[in-house]
Amino acid sequence: MSGTTARRRVLRVAVSGAAEHRADLLAVEEPLEIRVEDKPLIVTMRTPGDDIDLAAGFLFTEGLLAGLEDVHEIRMCDENVAAVTLRPGCALASGPAAAARNFLSTSACGVCGKDSIEAIRVRSTFDVAADPVQVSPAVLAALPDRLRDAQRVFSRTGGLHAAGLFTASGELLVVREDVGRHNAVDKIVGWALLNAKLPLTGCALLVSGRASFELVQKAVLAGIPLLAAVSAPSSLAAELADEAGLTLIGFLRGPSMNVYTGAHRVAT
Amino acid sequence: MSGTTARRRVLRVAVSGAAEHRADLLAVEEPLEIRVEDKPLIVTMRTPGDDIDLAAGFLFTEGLLAGLEDVHEIRMCDENVAAVTLRPGCALASGPAAAARNFLSTSACGVCGKDSIEAIRVRSTFDVAADPVQVSPAVLAALPDRLRDAQRVFSRTGGLHAAGLFTASGELLVVREDVGRHNAVDKIVGWALLNAKLPLTGCALLVSGRASFELVQKAVLAGIPLLAAVSAPSSLAAELADEAGLTLIGFLRGPSMNVYTGAHRVAT
Repeated sequence: MSGTTARRRVLRVAVSGAAEHRADLLAVEEPLEIRVEDKPLIVTMRTPGDDIDLAAGFLFTEGLLAGLEDVHEIRMCDENVAAVTLRPGCALASGPAAAARNFLSTSACGVCGKDSIEAIRVRSTFDVAADPVQVSPAVLAALPDRLRDAQRVFSRTGGLHAAGLFTASGELLVVREDVGRHNAVDKIVGWALLNAKLPLTGCALLVSGRASFELVQKAVLAGIPLLAAVSAPSSLAAELADEAGLTLIGFLRGPSMNVYTGAHRVAT
Repeated sequence: MSGTTARRRVLRVAVSGAAEHRADLLAVEEPLEIRVEDKPLIVTMRTPGDDIDLAAGFLFTEGLLAGLEDVHEIRMCDENVAAVTLRPGCALASGPAAAARNFLSTSACGVCGKDSIEAIRVRSTFDVAADPVQVSPAVLAALPDRLRDAQRVFSRTGGLHAAGLFTASGELLVVREDVGRHNAVDKIVGWALLNAKLPLTGCALLVSGRASFELVQKAVLAGIPLLAAVSAPSSLAAELADEAGLTLIGFLRGPSMNVYTGAHRVAT
């Protein structure tokens, strides 16, 4: 049940109407419930695998968990349930981002355009603006192929987002895949958190799709100074990257790339 | 502030290191707060435009709103705040899906693989399984081009998901774009709800990306019997489509397509 791919019989139909049955591999999507101190906190739709990393990364990048020192244990108590136990005296924070993207019944004030970043932003304890790392365009241009080579499932299903963490010289440190692009990044951040590798100073994070506000925020929370996306960033992704001092690269494919913010880290 | 695209100065860098500044258009991402009876319910990141449709579609496809008859008014009280007022005596439901994807502190039982669909599913009042519509492969194969032709922003930014609602003969009824693929579908369902067009019997919904569990659920909630995606579906999308009697088509691009469920609606 909890593999990364599921086989399914499909009907392959041509425009002409010709049709044949064949087997197809689908990316598995299953709910993961994250429980904290025996209380259900959230259910996220994800591809099974690295679920403990996902739970840790989710709590951390939502600003709910300050760090590993607050955690007693994270374990799977069912194939789709991750149970988090905190150390005595520790509790989850209730960050603004946690509030912002989820159901609430507080009396928080409205989110107007001007204050939108402030209202939904989780403050990072790491200052990525101060990271002096530089990466060459040639190294950057080679990352998408390295990510694809490392992806085990995408080429078979076409259905998974990937995220890869690289050194400044282009060495792949870790790759994660998921039906949800945020989950792929949370799995990487959780891996780093649980292996005491935060902040991810000097690293570059590559995502296979687009760069949203949330992905920039997750990178900043993990202390990653450079986020690259194969596709387009959003306006708010660029605004937050600018404000946080993160280098944001989009359309990293083929022989060129767009550097939206922090161009001083691209060694031209 | 609330257009669909934002202009930004970027540095275009080639692998060689050659670099030039140029103007780039980004898809706008801004938070939309949905308030119900003066209480903030959720903030979703979206591309501004059709926000009232988005609010209505979100509430409906989350199973929070039973129908238009419960709504007194939905209006924008700020460029990024949609305020929903219910009719006297009406209240939001608290559906399982609403609970599932969001922060909770109930004592709901865990989500095990076997019960996962049940645990997160919103029940539809419409029976798409009974819809006798048939669509020819040639009509289906032509939909992606029609959707792209109708997209105003994607070709300029590369950053927007699109969803299009079509008749069985391939006539485009409505197209919506958003940085969030769920939002694009919610905007269509909200448009249909507010224009008293639900259920969308006999219609086909095309999405520009992948098909997740949630998109299948939104289609079923709106009474749409056929969902097609340009890219891959997930395992749970296919499972729910099967169970609900929805026709699910993936990889609808080029001269062929994969029919995952409900193949009787594809007139081969």
